[in-house]
Formats: sequence, C-alpha cells, structure tokens
Amino acid sequence: MASVKGEEVVSNKQVILRDYVTGYPKESDMYVTTGSIKLKVPEGSNAVLVKNLYLSCDPYMRSRMKPATNASYIASFTPGSPIVGRGVGKVLDSAHPNFKKGDLVWGMTGWEEYSLITETDSLFEIQHTDVPLSYYTGILGMPGMTAYVGFYEVCSPKKGEYVFISAASGAVGQLVGQFAKLLGCFVVGSAGSKEKVDLLKNKFGFDDAFNYKEEPDLDAALKRYFPEGIDIYFENVGGKTLDAVLLNMRIHGRIAVCGMISQYNLDQPEGVKNLMFLIVKRIHMQGFLVSDYYHLYPKFLDTMLPYIREGKIVYVEDIAEGLESGPAALVGLFSGRNVGKQVVVVARE
Amino acid sequence: MASVKGEEVVSNKQVILRDYVTGYPKESDMYVTTGSIKLKVPEGSNAVLVKNLYLSCDPYMRSRMKPATNASYIASFTPGSPIVGRGVGKVLDSAHPNFKKGDLVWGMTGWEEYSLITETDSLFEIQHTDVPLSYYTGILGMPGMTAYVGFYEVCSPKKGEYVFISAASGAVGQLVGQFAKLLGCFVVGSAGSKEKVDLLKNKFGFDDAFNYKEEPDLDAALKRYFPEGIDIYFENVGGKTLDAVLLNMRIHGRIAVCGMISQYNLDQPEGVKNLMFLIVKRIHMQGFLVSDYYHLYPKFLDTMLPYIREGKIVYVEDIAEGLESGPAALVGLFSGRNVGKQVVVVARE
Repeated sequence: MASVKGEEVVSNKQVILRDYVTGYPKESDMYVTTGSIKLKVPEGSNAVLVKNLYLSCDPYMRSRMKPATNASYIASFTPGSPIVGRGVGKVLDSAHPNFKKGDLVWGMTGWEEYSLITETDSLFEIQHTDVPLSYYTGILGMPGMTAYVGFYEVCSPKKGEYVFISAASGAVGQLVGQFAKLLGCFVVGSAGSKEKVDLLKNKFGFDDAFNYKEEPDLDAALKRYFPEGIDIYFENVGGKTLDAVLLNMRIHGRIAVCGMISQYNLDQPEGVKNLMFLIVKRIHMQGFLVSDYYHLYPKFLDTMLPYIREGKIVYVEDIAEGLESGPAALVGLFSGRNVGKQVVVVARE
Repeated sequence: MASVKGEEVVSNKQVILRDYVTGYPKESDMYVTTGSIKLKVPEGSNAVLVKNLYLSCDPYMRSRMKPATNASYIASFTPGSPIVGRGVGKVLDSAHPNFKKGDLVWGMTGWEEYSLITETDSLFEIQHTDVPLSYYTGILGMPGMTAYVGFYEVCSPKKGEYVFISAASGAVGQLVGQFAKLLGCFVVGSAGSKEKVDLLKNKFGFDDAFNYKEEPDLDAALKRYFPEGIDIYFENVGGKTLDAVLLNMRIHGRIAVCGMISQYNLDQPEGVKNLMFLIVKRIHMQGFLVSDYYHLYPKFLDTMLPYIREGKIVYVEDIAEGLESGPAALVGLFSGRNVGKQVVVVARE
C-alpha cells in the first residue's frame, strides 16, 4: 500500500473479459489480474468509490459479453476491462451528495475489489441491515424486483390460478413461486436437477416441480402437472419450453416474458411454432424489463422486508468465495450449476 | 316446387365439403349438389329458416376444414355436409321470438340457397339497409368488428404512432388502416400484388404500402418504411413477417394477433425466432377473438354507420357471383386471389 501526498493507492484484483464470446461462455473467456486504484474520488467529480463486498451473477450479463446489436438493451462489456454487474459495496469515499463514506450501497459496479463508480444512477443506499447484505444482490435487489413486478404488475394474478415457472429455483423463479403461493395459486416449477426439484417442493413450498431434463416430452409433462391448463406462465427459458407451454395455456392466459436463458448462447435462436395458440386461447404475452419499474422499489421493500423477517418468504443463495471464483460462478449459470441465486463474495465487510 | 299439405318444398343448391383437407385447399375439395328443403321451420323448434343472399369467405374457415385439435376454437365442418360460414339472409319462416318473416339477418348459416338455422345465437337482425346488404359480411359484420376491437381494444393506439398492418387490403386490414389514419397514426400496409398496394395507397389512404412478394428482405423493407420503428403491428399473417416485425418494434410496442394466414396450410408452422425482442422492447403481444367482444356490437354500429354514410371509411369487396363460384372464392383467399373482402352472392333479394 503506497501513500502519495496523503492519497492511498492499493492493489485491486479484477475479473477481465478477454474478448467477445460466441456460444457458451467459458471460465477462460475471463481472467483475473491485479491492478491498482487510488482510494479517493477525483476532485470535481460526482463519483463514489466503493469496496465491493458481494457481486451478483445474472443471466442477462451474457448479452454484454458480445458486441451490441439491435437486440441489446444494455451496453456491451469492453474486452480487456473488468466486467460489470450489480453488487453490494461499502462507500470509502464519495463526491456525490446522496452517498457518504461508510454507507452501504447496491447497484452497478465492477468485478474487482474496489470500484470508482461514475454512473451513480443505479445506486441505492442500503438502509436495512438486519437481513444478510448479500440479499441486495437478489431477493432485495434486481432479481427480487424482477419477480415482484413480473408477477404482480405483468401477470395480473388471481387466487386459485394455475401458475407455471421455468428456471424456477433461480434467483427470480423461487420468489415468483412463493408470491404465487402467498396469493393462493397452484404453482409448479421446472428446474434442471433433482436437488433443485427438491428445493422447489420442500423449501419453497411449490405444489409440485419436475426436472425438465428427465422429460422427453415437455407437452406431456405439462399435461400431467396441469390437467386443467396453465393460467400464468412466468417465462425464464424460451425455446422448446415456451412451445410446450403454448399448447397448454388456458383461455385468457398470461405469459410474462422475463428471460429466455436457453437461447442466450445459441447462434440462431430456436423457432417457436405454436404462436397460433395466442389467438386460440386469447393470450397476453408481455416482455418486461425491471428497469421500467424502479419507482416501485420503496413499495417493494415495504412488502419484502416483513416477509423475510417473518419467514413468509425464504431465499436460497449459492455463494462462491472470492473474486477468483467469479468466472466459474458466472459461466455456471448457463449450465445450471448454481442452486439458487449465484453470488460471489469479494469481502464480507 | 312441390307443395305437400301446404308445405312448400324447394330445390336447394349446396356447397359440400368432400373430405378433410391437408395443405392448401383446392376447389375440388368441395362440390356443388342440389338437395331439397321444406320452407317451414319444424313445429316446436326455435329455428329460423332463411334464404341466403350473401356468404362471407373468411380465413378462419380453413381451420374448420380439418379434424378438430386442441388448436381449434370452433367445430370442424362435417365432410359430406354443406360448409358453414357467416352470411346475410332473409327470414322466410321463424319459430324464434326475436325473428319474423321478412327480417334481414346476418350470422352463421350454411353454404346453400336456403338454410334452417337451429343455432340462432350468432344471428343479428339487420336494422339499417341504406348501406349495401353485403356489408354485413364485412365492414358491418365479423371482419368489421374484428378490426374495430382489435385496433381500439387491443392495440391501445395513440395519435402519431407508427402502425404496420399485414394482409392490409383484406377484409380486416383495410379497416384497421383507416381507423389508424382517422386517429392520426402513420400507417403502412403490406399486401401481395401491385393492385392491392395501389388500393392501400390510393383508396384507403395508407401513408405507404409494399408488395411483400417483391421484398426478399422483409427486415430491410420494414426499416425503409419505418426508420423510427413500429409502435403497433396488426398481425394477420404470422411466420417470417412476424419475425421481421419483431426486429423493428419500438419500446413498449403492441402486437395484436388477429390471424396467421401464412401458417394455416402448413403441416408444421414456421418457427418464430426473434421473440427475445419481446423483452428487449417490452412488447405486449395479445391474441384475440372477436367472439369475446360482441357485446360491443351496438356501439360499433353507432360508430361505423356514420363513417360509411359520410364517406370517412370506404370498403372494397370482391364479389363472386353465384353459389357455384363459392369454392373458388374460398380457396382463393389462401393464394391471395381476392382483392378486398371476398363475398359470394347467392341471391340479391
């Protein structure tokens, strides 16, 4: 640690994107290196300097690992630079009026030990610390908001409806299922391992769950779990699953399109063939981005914090220790290696 | 004409479905025969006996020419029996309290000279005859209602928005475009011939129109006509057109899924690949059936009749003369032979 004119410079471990990625991302598409950083925000800036504590691995980050196209809603990463994502950090220095040294924040930060955050629009101050800080990468952060607005704002759910959730044990799916159960819906989820299916049934209280990898005929599986059909499909995977779901939707059903993780690593997306059922069953299908709904964040917190404190909603995280484990944790999302919300711990305080 | 105990029996020409159809329907899938009918409703029934005047050719009828599947929302035709569709008729006899001899009606009837209608739920009495009676198969009937509810109820249109309509010169499309123009939208339509494109531009007042058969790259065509993108897509064709439209939708765009005529005669529907854009652009895609909206029919008439009388909305029909021309007229829908709403005249009064 060097001190120059009272300014502390420290080493800064970073996860760097080697180059744009085609196909499934691999650990070797990233590398860990050590740079240095001055623990002080530049004079005259509006920036915030944070020590990163928890980093969030989210499926949408795949889209930032390739050059921007007109299918992009967010900028690409810069090869040779640290990747960027949401995380929880502690403010070490701030030139921004809303943040001061010692504050805990969550929002967009770098995959590194320390980040100088110049785009502060996405930063939220963390005011409730009686829950695990890592929760602000998940249940109390972007994925939690995604589940909340996707279910309550997009799905128009009603008590007693039949709800299907794909990628159901993930950061978003596990919450959507619990929201639906709290409302009195019948909820079935799909996931990719026995361990995840057990979680859905025994931890998250889904009415039922199945391992899609063991179902050669998804249509038949859905007919078994939903003999009356599906009112609400919370779409996280796309492709063949969506095609099978379309065959099983009920009249006036709703499909909230949150993500299509099965498609992110394909050169060409799979074609979806059963869209005629949108007409036959008069289905509402709506894509959404959580970024349109952050004005609801205070209301969301008022709902979620009591749920968590009273144990009405539980949350499962998959914690990877250390920044070095970040690349494997991130690429693991796309093979379904994670069980629950994938978090990388950089430091605990 | 024979009279038995005062009951008149007349000959009754009919269009019969030979057998279920695979692939594109052909004229030879139907044949014309002559039966006989008693021009009196059975005692104790609720039936209505009509002389058919105008019969409507509608794309959805293709789905009734094959065995019912879980993709059917309406019963199949019965091979060996007359096909069934909407039409305009004159009541010759009635046991139903809502209809009396001499009334003009529109609704579900047989493709024959005279029909005994026992399922009378779909019948509407025609009260305004200062407009062409054939209009009740189109602009004032099911296609008109489809355009009206599809545009106003499903698309949530706003002045100044960019609207694209496929199969735009058809019975529904030509009206959607005129509704959109009346609201102050920018409207472009696609159709399958120069004659239709001319109609769209010169008769219906679309801002622009193109022949999709002359556009090897639909994405490029849409980018040319909508450099700012599309707010509202009124979907009548499906398949490749939908895929190209998805690439060109604007944020918070809406897609009203009315029909997918390009898919009706395929063994396997084409796969639609660009559904990720539903998320990226936060698109609402909604399938609808006009049958959910007939409670709005009186309001619809109150809107449409003045529009027609004042010339604010025009309507183009393609009239086939005589029941014998029915099979060719119906199958012509699927090759795009018709220019405007396809009607078959059985009798003029």
